[in-house]
Amino acid sequence: MPDVSNQPTLWEGKYLRVTARDKWEYVTRRGTSGVVGIVAMTDDRRLVLVEQFRPPVNRNVIEIPAGLAGDVKGSEHEKLADAAARELLEETGYAASEIVYLCEGVSSAGLTDELITLFRATGLTKQGKGLGDETEDITLHEIPVAEVESWIARQVRQGKMVDLKVYAALRWVVGA
Amino acid sequence: MPDVSNQPTLWEGKYLRVTARDKWEYVTRRGTSGVVGIVAMTDDRRLVLVEQFRPPVNRNVIEIPAGLAGDVKGSEHEKLADAAARELLEETGYAASEIVYLCEGVSSAGLTDELITLFRATGLTKQGKGLGDETEDITLHEIPVAEVESWIARQVRQGKMVDLKVYAALRWVVGA
Repeated sequence: MPDVSNQPTLWEGKYLRVTARDKWEYVTRRGTSGVVGIVAMTDDRRLVLVEQFRPPVNRNVIEIPAGLAGDVKGSEHEKLADAAARELLEETGYAASEIVYLCEGVSSAGLTDELITLFRATGLTKQGKGLGDETEDITLHEIPVAEVESWIARQVRQGKMVDLKVYAALRWVVGA
Repeated sequence: MPDVSNQPTLWEGKYLRVTARDKWEYVTRRGTSGVVGIVAMTDDRRLVLVEQFRPPVNRNVIEIPAGLAGDVKGSEHEKLADAAARELLEETGYAASEIVYLCEGVSSAGLTDELITLFRATGLTKQGKGLGDETEDITLHEIPVAEVESWIARQVRQGKMVDLKVYAALRWVVGA
């Protein structure tokens, strides 16, 4: 994480903070130790995707399961792989027998210091309904890997948006 | 773009604005009509990547060429495909004989309304040095498509970061 000494806080809200580095304005998520995304594939080669309303874009967005690490009081030092397993279970109801680190990368380093760590989850078994915690309203989709792009195109025609990490996810499941 | 009527502005800087929708805080880029990213591949199948220092993460970041549309005074209605061609030329010195729309997607819809439109650029011919405008300091990399992931791993070991859109880009060039 960046050294934030000598950087003025320009604004602070409940969830976000705006900081300046050499006049460059950027936003930080408050109260989290990391962000994880999960590339989850079922044994019959379906990619597990979630759909939820995202206030910033005022639309439903198709995404890979994802969430914040260390955002629960008492679990500030939650390991990223543990957060990935927890978020996958919370959002999709799937437990994974294998969670493998894929990569970490920034989402938009011109405006935020957000760094996302991606894991691949396989050996999935249904443990519950998923669909998020009490603050989330999630629709679950399981799409055959070979059909994901045509399926996304249909969702977009219906007015939904897609998170670019879904395309990154395809990198690790197509042909895998 | 979202309807922003009746949404309070919480903070406004020179480049960013923080808005609330139903208590959900999110950030918007000011003074731009869109963001474009370019998946550029040379005739000998090298992926064109750029590296620049990103103040929000205090590191050098490996990215696909990208930039803002309509951020130049007098060109507020610049078409996205035109912005893609301009940014590619500015950052890499390459002119493309073909610019094809690939997809649009959000970068991080939990914290920003940023929507990025990706284009594929082929038929590249060198027209100049590139390396950005007077505010940018860009290093150009041209990496054989099959070697991109191992090359990235080496860059990360050297302390650099990577933008997740690079992995999405691989989706459209590997096997293409």
